[in-house]
Amino acid sequence: MEERKLTLLMDFYELTMANGYFKDGKHEQIAVFDVFFRNVPDRGGYAIFAGLEQVIDYLDTLEFSKSEIDYLKSKEIFDRDFLKYLENFKFTSDVYAIEEGTPIFPQEPLITVKGPIIECQLVETMLLLTINHQSLIATKAARIVRAAQGRSVLEFGARRAHGYDASIYGARAAYIAGVLGTSNTYADYQYKIPALGTMAHSYIQSYDSEYEAFVAYAKTYPKATLLLVDTYNTLKQGIPNAIRVHKEILEPHGEYLKGIRLDSGDLTYLTKKAREMLDEAGLTKTKITVSNSLDEYLIKELIAQGAQIDTFGVGERLVTARSEAVFGGVFKLAAIEKNGELEPKIKISENIQKTTIPAFKQVYRFYDENGMAEADVITLHDETIDETIPYELFHPLYPWKKKMVNNFKVKPLLIKIFEDGKLIYDKPSLEDIRKHCQTSMAQLWPEVLRLENPHEYYVDLSKDLFELKQSLIKKYRSS
Amino acid sequence: MEERKLTLLMDFYELTMANGYFKDGKHEQIAVFDVFFRNVPDRGGYAIFAGLEQVIDYLDTLEFSKSEIDYLKSKEIFDRDFLKYLENFKFTSDVYAIEEGTPIFPQEPLITVKGPIIECQLVETMLLLTINHQSLIATKAARIVRAAQGRSVLEFGARRAHGYDASIYGARAAYIAGVLGTSNTYADYQYKIPALGTMAHSYIQSYDSEYEAFVAYAKTYPKATLLLVDTYNTLKQGIPNAIRVHKEILEPHGEYLKGIRLDSGDLTYLTKKAREMLDEAGLTKTKITVSNSLDEYLIKELIAQGAQIDTFGVGERLVTARSEAVFGGVFKLAAIEKNGELEPKIKISENIQKTTIPAFKQVYRFYDENGMAEADVITLHDETIDETIPYELFHPLYPWKKKMVNNFKVKPLLIKIFEDGKLIYDKPSLEDIRKHCQTSMAQLWPEVLRLENPHEYYVDLSKDLFELKQSLIKKYRSS
Repeated sequence: MEERKLTLLMDFYELTMANGYFKDGKHEQIAVFDVFFRNVPDRGGYAIFAGLEQVIDYLDTLEFSKSEIDYLKSKEIFDRDFLKYLENFKFTSDVYAIEEGTPIFPQEPLITVKGPIIECQLVETMLLLTINHQSLIATKAARIVRAAQGRSVLEFGARRAHGYDASIYGARAAYIAGVLGTSNTYADYQYKIPALGTMAHSYIQSYDSEYEAFVAYAKTYPKATLLLVDTYNTLKQGIPNAIRVHKEILEPHGEYLKGIRLDSGDLTYLTKKAREMLDEAGLTKTKITVSNSLDEYLIKELIAQGAQIDTFGVGERLVTARSEAVFGGVFKLAAIEKNGELEPKIKISENIQKTTIPAFKQVYRFYDENGMAEADVITLHDETIDETIPYELFHPLYPWKKKMVNNFKVKPLLIKIFEDGKLIYDKPSLEDIRKHCQTSMAQLWPEVLRLENPHEYYVDLSKDLFELKQSLIKKYRSS
Repeated sequence: MEERKLTLLMDFYELTMANGYFKDGKHEQIAVFDVFFRNVPDRGGYAIFAGLEQVIDYLDTLEFSKSEIDYLKSKEIFDRDFLKYLENFKFTSDVYAIEEGTPIFPQEPLITVKGPIIECQLVETMLLLTINHQSLIATKAARIVRAAQGRSVLEFGARRAHGYDASIYGARAAYIAGVLGTSNTYADYQYKIPALGTMAHSYIQSYDSEYEAFVAYAKTYPKATLLLVDTYNTLKQGIPNAIRVHKEILEPHGEYLKGIRLDSGDLTYLTKKAREMLDEAGLTKTKITVSNSLDEYLIKELIAQGAQIDTFGVGERLVTARSEAVFGGVFKLAAIEKNGELEPKIKISENIQKTTIPAFKQVYRFYDENGMAEADVITLHDETIDETIPYELFHPLYPWKKKMVNNFKVKPLLIKIFEDGKLIYDKPSLEDIRKHCQTSMAQLWPEVLRLENPHEYYVDLSKDLFELKQSLIKKYRSS
């Protein structure tokens, strides 16, 4: 039984800064930090927010053990009083977050932490690590599932994942975004994500012949016979042997060959032929599963070519998000208390897209009369939006691009999760998160969801927030 | 305290196959499986083998708990006797492996498991997952460290890693391959990989001015003052403020500004200017650290342009191996017992590079009179090589490409780690693994190590193994 406690999974500078704040007597100064991201991976139109449950569990149990404190002491740079503070550490901040499974867009706050600056700093690394990983995989999975156009997608990547957590939480994130199951048994055991699998080439090879291997498998699993047909020669041996085993072993007992799997070769050609051969043998209900370095682009191509596929097993390219393996979430200071007031903070960059959005904020999603999402508007935290009067949306970088909306509904996306360090949010089940993902993806226009050159979803600032930002930029420029 | 036990981190098909073997009464049949890989990531000339310690720990403690068995029972497809077998599971196989930190090449066995086929199958996923992840990161880190040409490299990627293990074992793998330290405190706490870090932009922003933030930091860490100078304006504010703080706070107390860090902008231009400004102020020993989406290509470019950099902090592109996030290690059947003899097995592929190398094997590394590695030769397991007589190397795909070598030394690379399930290998310390990596990298020619278009290191087959392989191919073709 391996035990682990991840409190020290933080960048060392969080600790040097925290110690600095402490020594300077400013550790209890209230600050507001936002998690947000700047670019959708793979030039997509949306990302899927995932990992919140693990963030909550982390914050809810965060404490420093004696051996962790002893380790820090051994570094000989931390103040004795600071270490005592850590010894008695209790998370006391407020946390707001977007619900897990929600489609998210660049610039908008995904998680906001409001509390003593020392706490904000100490939790930075784990928040980013968790959200960046799971949102990366959920986003990639959403793309793949969509490319499959209703066909089943299974997550088969455990062996190529970046470590154990990547395989487990990768399966979790992929499940949120719509895959039907995983090869990873642990993910089923721990998270009830359906685990699936039948046989590898080695199983076939361990018998004297493919036929004998198929017979053995069909006898062991008569109700779930799915045969890997490409160990020797798919069309000349594999499929004929599968059909023969159906007729000799399954049919006489009233069972049916559930499926075949192909893991190599020209999948378009082979699956078309396979379908023909199965259909000719009367096996019209036998499903065809394929695997072999698939991703959304290959799946789209296979379908376009008329490949006859019921299920895609997607491995390494999903679990590593190989086409873009980095989700660039950041954690930035948005406001800090001064004389009892929250003072908005901005970080200016020569790159205008990298200038941060100041202040303690909220995000509203606007829905049209049909319930379709048409824009997100980032506002000051306590702004409200009146649904009964027209609202002017405008582009935050090109404010002359304007649009007046009527008959809309709004929903605030940031929900209060922790109040004074106390968890006040009812964590949804994984199934509910998955359903929420499906429902809220269905509220996005296909133009936003498409794989290539998607329409840019509007993420605007409220007038008040826009003006605040401009005034801070002006102030900074003139200083 | 989170507990975890990863026994069920296996592809579900390992279990369906294992149950099948069991039901068929062939689960104790002795098999030989090899872990190997086919392509070096990033078209490099070598990879670094990493993760063996975690594989050993996994195999050494592998067992099924009651709750794991109960979960499997709930699937209603596993035999009662099979579950009883798992309940009493003990790993009894022999395991051979290449030492961790060794440069490795395509096709050669990295780990060989010889034992009951049911055991081989059950451990497949964890072996691959562990080796694929850590070898991927170690290989990427080796490239980055080499590109830095003796300058320091630090691993700063925790926040962008694919989950907690990826950040921790990623730091470990990177350390093996030569990075000097990590930002990840946990990696220091648990593995004594030096953790480093100073401050983020938020620290600077939390003070009324950059100058005040620098003063506070210098007072807190007078012996380790390294200042982040790019929050506002690197050349106009950041560096002048750093110099001022050195003169006002550090120098009067006999201390010295240890370094500055830049995280944005044109790093070539800014570091040249920074160096000039620091030197002019007499701060010739102050080091310059840079970060910001670096990798081996950018580092090479920065150095070629004359950037004045002492230390590279490398984050997301190292910890995710972003340029090629997949290490494609596989686990293939090489032999299986038949009538008390090991029968070599081959998996033929239309793609000749994908045809497996049959039989229970060994790998010998050949060194010339200067101790430089010139080739690896894969042999039958019990072959010996006589160093006193010339040896003919030949290309396994183009056997007419031949080379006779004299005055060589050989070293068998596969070491026996487990004997009948008992650990008989003395696990080296992380420091020793790291040194071994450094030493054995130094035995490779620069032509093999270079970043682009490297020389292909010879991985040949012994005459006996080559002939065995040909005969199996012939036999298969004529069947």
